[in-house]
Amino acid sequence: MISARGYAAKDSKSPLAPFQFERREPGERDVQMEVLYCGICHSDLHQARDEWGGALFPMVPGHEIVGRVVRTGSGVKKFKAGDLVGVGCMVDSCRTCSSCKEGLEQYCEAGNIPTYNGREKDGKTLTQGGYSDTLVVDEDFVLKVPANLDPASAAPLLCAGITTYSPLKHWKVGPGQKVGVVGLGGLGHMGVKLARAMGAHVIVFSRTDKKKEDALRLGAHEVVSSSNKQEMAAHKGKLDLILDTVSAQHDVNDYLSLLRRDGHMVLVGAPEKPLELRAFSVIPQRRSFSGSMIGGIQETQEMLDFCGQHGIVSDIELIPIQQVNDAYERMLKGDVKYRFVIDLKSLR
Amino acid sequence: MISARGYAAKDSKSPLAPFQFERREPGERDVQMEVLYCGICHSDLHQARDEWGGALFPMVPGHEIVGRVVRTGSGVKKFKAGDLVGVGCMVDSCRTCSSCKEGLEQYCEAGNIPTYNGREKDGKTLTQGGYSDTLVVDEDFVLKVPANLDPASAAPLLCAGITTYSPLKHWKVGPGQKVGVVGLGGLGHMGVKLARAMGAHVIVFSRTDKKKEDALRLGAHEVVSSSNKQEMAAHKGKLDLILDTVSAQHDVNDYLSLLRRDGHMVLVGAPEKPLELRAFSVIPQRRSFSGSMIGGIQETQEMLDFCGQHGIVSDIELIPIQQVNDAYERMLKGDVKYRFVIDLKSLR
Repeated sequence: MISARGYAAKDSKSPLAPFQFERREPGERDVQMEVLYCGICHSDLHQARDEWGGALFPMVPGHEIVGRVVRTGSGVKKFKAGDLVGVGCMVDSCRTCSSCKEGLEQYCEAGNIPTYNGREKDGKTLTQGGYSDTLVVDEDFVLKVPANLDPASAAPLLCAGITTYSPLKHWKVGPGQKVGVVGLGGLGHMGVKLARAMGAHVIVFSRTDKKKEDALRLGAHEVVSSSNKQEMAAHKGKLDLILDTVSAQHDVNDYLSLLRRDGHMVLVGAPEKPLELRAFSVIPQRRSFSGSMIGGIQETQEMLDFCGQHGIVSDIELIPIQQVNDAYERMLKGDVKYRFVIDLKSLR
Repeated sequence: MISARGYAAKDSKSPLAPFQFERREPGERDVQMEVLYCGICHSDLHQARDEWGGALFPMVPGHEIVGRVVRTGSGVKKFKAGDLVGVGCMVDSCRTCSSCKEGLEQYCEAGNIPTYNGREKDGKTLTQGGYSDTLVVDEDFVLKVPANLDPASAAPLLCAGITTYSPLKHWKVGPGQKVGVVGLGGLGHMGVKLARAMGAHVIVFSRTDKKKEDALRLGAHEVVSSSNKQEMAAHKGKLDLILDTVSAQHDVNDYLSLLRRDGHMVLVGAPEKPLELRAFSVIPQRRSFSGSMIGGIQETQEMLDFCGQHGIVSDIELIPIQQVNDAYERMLKGDVKYRFVIDLKSLR
């Protein structure tokens, strides 16, 4: 076994603390990497505090991982030592169900194997994430990170990037379309950059004017104050797609009324409590309130390549791992522009 | 003007009562019909009692209309005196917006002109529905009723029929697919018949066993008790589409989890209060909670022709118009199999 170090939650009530554990020796198809950077996703906090239920402890969170390959199994064909690679929210899946066969491993019917807070294929060993110095992953779940991207700023692409890219692609966003982004946090700011790069007209909705300048800088064409009824009314029936990145309680009905016929509002944030949805928010223009979860492996590679071509990365604040608990508190207050990324050098 | 008689609500608190009013003389493109039968839709009651707001009184409800043409304008090409015709929920639309041009007049961007509880193109005259002896409608919003269908039982096709047919077609229901129907009332029982005729495997969800036999008789392949967790779990992730025809408060989350990846649960009932929707009901398999509203004119004709070919009509209870208020009370208790239809002979 490989000795690994990281930061773990030992239960749902404790702060993250240094943790020593073991990872499997790389098998024939495995890639071992030195973890360089790991983004902090809101779902890390949700899971470390068992807010979604069923959390497995001790838990080393982290699924926005960029690393350098140090070792490969004898059967590995796609990677070699020295490659800059990424790992996102999944490290394996059943590979036989219809979703897996269509490259939609995130929707694996048997359930994909999450990068942390899950169990390996043996059904026993806990998977442990990227708040750690090293990682061993089957090559089929390892991504190539374009060399022209800053590796620390690229880390959040592995979750925040693909989570917003996938619905934009699935619902065929492109030139001539209007895309709304609700919530300008880690997910939302990626949504703005990606939708803009896909050629859409991007409208950011924000409760206050505080984020206006930043939204425009990130690529939004317009910023609408969601509390201003007149501004909202001006967009009624005009939007093709709305990305809802808010993970707190919020009213979705006012946004739904902004959709054109057959438009989708796509929830990618994950509020704990149910949202209230009015019948007449969806019936009149055959609107849909949909969900979307990360993206498949092939699509994640496509997203990384797209980001390489367009020079898109996340806006980040780089921190040593010792500050992870503070970062959680600041993230809860929305005090981050726009993603914390852990520099794993701090662990060595 | 043409003198017309009907039953109207004079305000939101009063029962329907006999009412004398005028309709326009048929214009060049108008068809005048003698109303033979008119179905009673739940939305008649909602609107007569102003439960959706903005109701216009006096109001003659009724938008499931079958009649016989008695007169046509000089420019009318599609109909002649003696034809058996139908009128549904709309009597006109802007005809120039993209929805109208695509034959989706129900989603007219300027708002279609409803058969009642709306205003005619003059912006003043109230439209009045089918609880009346005669009707004048532009030929483009008049449908041909297949001669082999019982005209009284065909009346509910004009709303309950098209409201369920349209989403089944839009989301491409057919052989090899599993369709769930929630709620076995006026809409639901049409959904069962139509989905069955389209070749789908039809599963009716019901809180109690009371309706089991009837559901099977109507064409359901299976009936699942929604309160039985084990029965529900057996269908998890298996359904392609769920038609939600319930117009009262209900929990949609248990049903959403029965959808396959990319499945749609389509709300066609219209509960007054918001529904509670959990993020994890839609995110995991990219599910959608969608709405759908009646159908376009061309599609309504297609539906009527389809019903003609398959011998599909509504199960009805025929009543004289003098019993309309009792029928409303019974409808509120779900005491109707499955649609009240007014025999307008009773008015003459």
